[in-house]
Amino acid sequence: MQSYLDCIPCFVRQTLQAARFVTDDVGIHERVLRDVLRRAAEMDLGASPPVMGRYIHELIRRFTGNDDPYRTVKEHFNGYALKLLPGLRVKVENSPDPLEAAVRLAIAGNVIDFGTASEVNESYVSEAIEQALSATLPGAAVGQLRKAIEQADEILYLADNAGEIVFDRLLIERMPLEKVTVVVKGGPVINDATMTDAEAAGLCELVRVVDNGTAAPGTILEICSGDFRERFQAADLIISKGQGNYETLSDVTAEIFFLLKAKCPVIARDVGCQVGDLVVRRGQDTCTNRGPAQK
Amino acid sequence: MQSYLDCIPCFVRQTLQAARFVTDDVGIHERVLRDVLRRAAEMDLGASPPVMGRYIHELIRRFTGNDDPYRTVKEHFNGYALKLLPGLRVKVENSPDPLEAAVRLAIAGNVIDFGTASEVNESYVSEAIEQALSATLPGAAVGQLRKAIEQADEILYLADNAGEIVFDRLLIERMPLEKVTVVVKGGPVINDATMTDAEAAGLCELVRVVDNGTAAPGTILEICSGDFRERFQAADLIISKGQGNYETLSDVTAEIFFLLKAKCPVIARDVGCQVGDLVVRRGQDTCTNRGPAQK
Repeated sequence: MQSYLDCIPCFVRQTLQAARFVTDDVGIHERVLRDVLRRAAEMDLGASPPVMGRYIHELIRRFTGNDDPYRTVKEHFNGYALKLLPGLRVKVENSPDPLEAAVRLAIAGNVIDFGTASEVNESYVSEAIEQALSATLPGAAVGQLRKAIEQADEILYLADNAGEIVFDRLLIERMPLEKVTVVVKGGPVINDATMTDAEAAGLCELVRVVDNGTAAPGTILEICSGDFRERFQAADLIISKGQGNYETLSDVTAEIFFLLKAKCPVIARDVGCQVGDLVVRRGQDTCTNRGPAQK
Repeated sequence: MQSYLDCIPCFVRQTLQAARFVTDDVGIHERVLRDVLRRAAEMDLGASPPVMGRYIHELIRRFTGNDDPYRTVKEHFNGYALKLLPGLRVKVENSPDPLEAAVRLAIAGNVIDFGTASEVNESYVSEAIEQALSATLPGAAVGQLRKAIEQADEILYLADNAGEIVFDRLLIERMPLEKVTVVVKGGPVINDATMTDAEAAGLCELVRVVDNGTAAPGTILEICSGDFRERFQAADLIISKGQGNYETLSDVTAEIFFLLKAKCPVIARDVGCQVGDLVVRRGQDTCTNRGPAQK
């Protein structure tokens, strides 16, 4: 997905929010903001939004000298999600359609996103869980995903954020584990999950986990490691979590299912849904859950 | 008032909104936005926000070749306010304190501001009137204003927006008319009132009306005409309407009363009030209506 003019005010707003989240040093806030303004003035709108997101957060890490400024919130939400996990697993197992329930909850976890929101808290996550369990889900796409999981030999599961990755376990546990490879980011960027978070989530004991070789809030294939790109080519099913992965992979030709919560109007327009909708979208198929977000 | 870092995302957002309001040409939206990003990257935060506002809207007029893109909405809101005027005048005359009622309504008219809002409609104005009539007003400042009006020999009334300028009549009509000079902008910028709007509001038959020689959404003294600056020096009472005039004159030493509705958090913080509050502030005095906006 390209960047839109609407993304630009949002980049600028997010830059200031993120700089303030990471440091109280007003001088750094100003330096980061001015640098991003200069960059945004010349940016290629053909590039996806995470290209700019990567730039912004690399800048913040460099100016603050803090290599992983979201470490505390990542740990917090991993811990919080792990506390919820047993109860959520019961919900999945007691559901008439456990796979669908797991998809709903994996998408609910996608609200733990410090890239789009300036603040995420536990009650926000609880509300997202409740909403996800009753929201409209595109039935056809879920059916296709079910079939694809049954038929695939190599499933690549592209994780999104820390905390969220614990919710992903619910879905991963419903797949043939030996066929699954989970992919995390190659370095810290916002609260995106890295290997540390996969370990905290207990995923490393369950399935193969690799990183994509880059610290971008999405999957920018051109700059990912050769190893990751080979896996991406070889997989016969890719499950892509979150907005950043959607933004960077929506134009790629592959058997790919995007699972995310639409958190901004630009994404919602691109997907063909409403802000707040749960999205299950196969490749470039039209989204089928248009209409109100709730049943 | 200086510009704050928080103003920058707002400038960028307003640029895109304003460009879209004025033209459907996406190429122009992009050119204006990129130019403003470049400018914002280098801007002097010591300059007040209307310095950037002036730049943005000058750019939009130049790129679109439209010298007065807000003419239609200015006419619309002049007309709408003129329809309301007789009823509002009755409210003022029947009020136990007509001057205070006129101050409230003049401030209510300040919501007709296309600089801070992307859309203003009639029901929004009606609500502002109702709110203004019952909101908390800083009593001490109103008392000082009353006294200043009684004692002044030369009153300079700095108008803000078209439409709003009709509401200003209610207050101006309560002053000794021969002592009042109303000031409008020297050229079109956003929906700020120019001489055309003062005429439409019927002010030119009532009092002396002059322009300040510039097309900035505020009163940037250094670039105003010599004639205006002489009047500004000579006046023994200045009544300044709206955010833009506050932003550009809040640090000037003069007998000046600011009447405005606080429409953004940066202004509210600078004034010492809440967003939505009616502000009557004498010079650099501390605002006295802290607390909830409504009684």
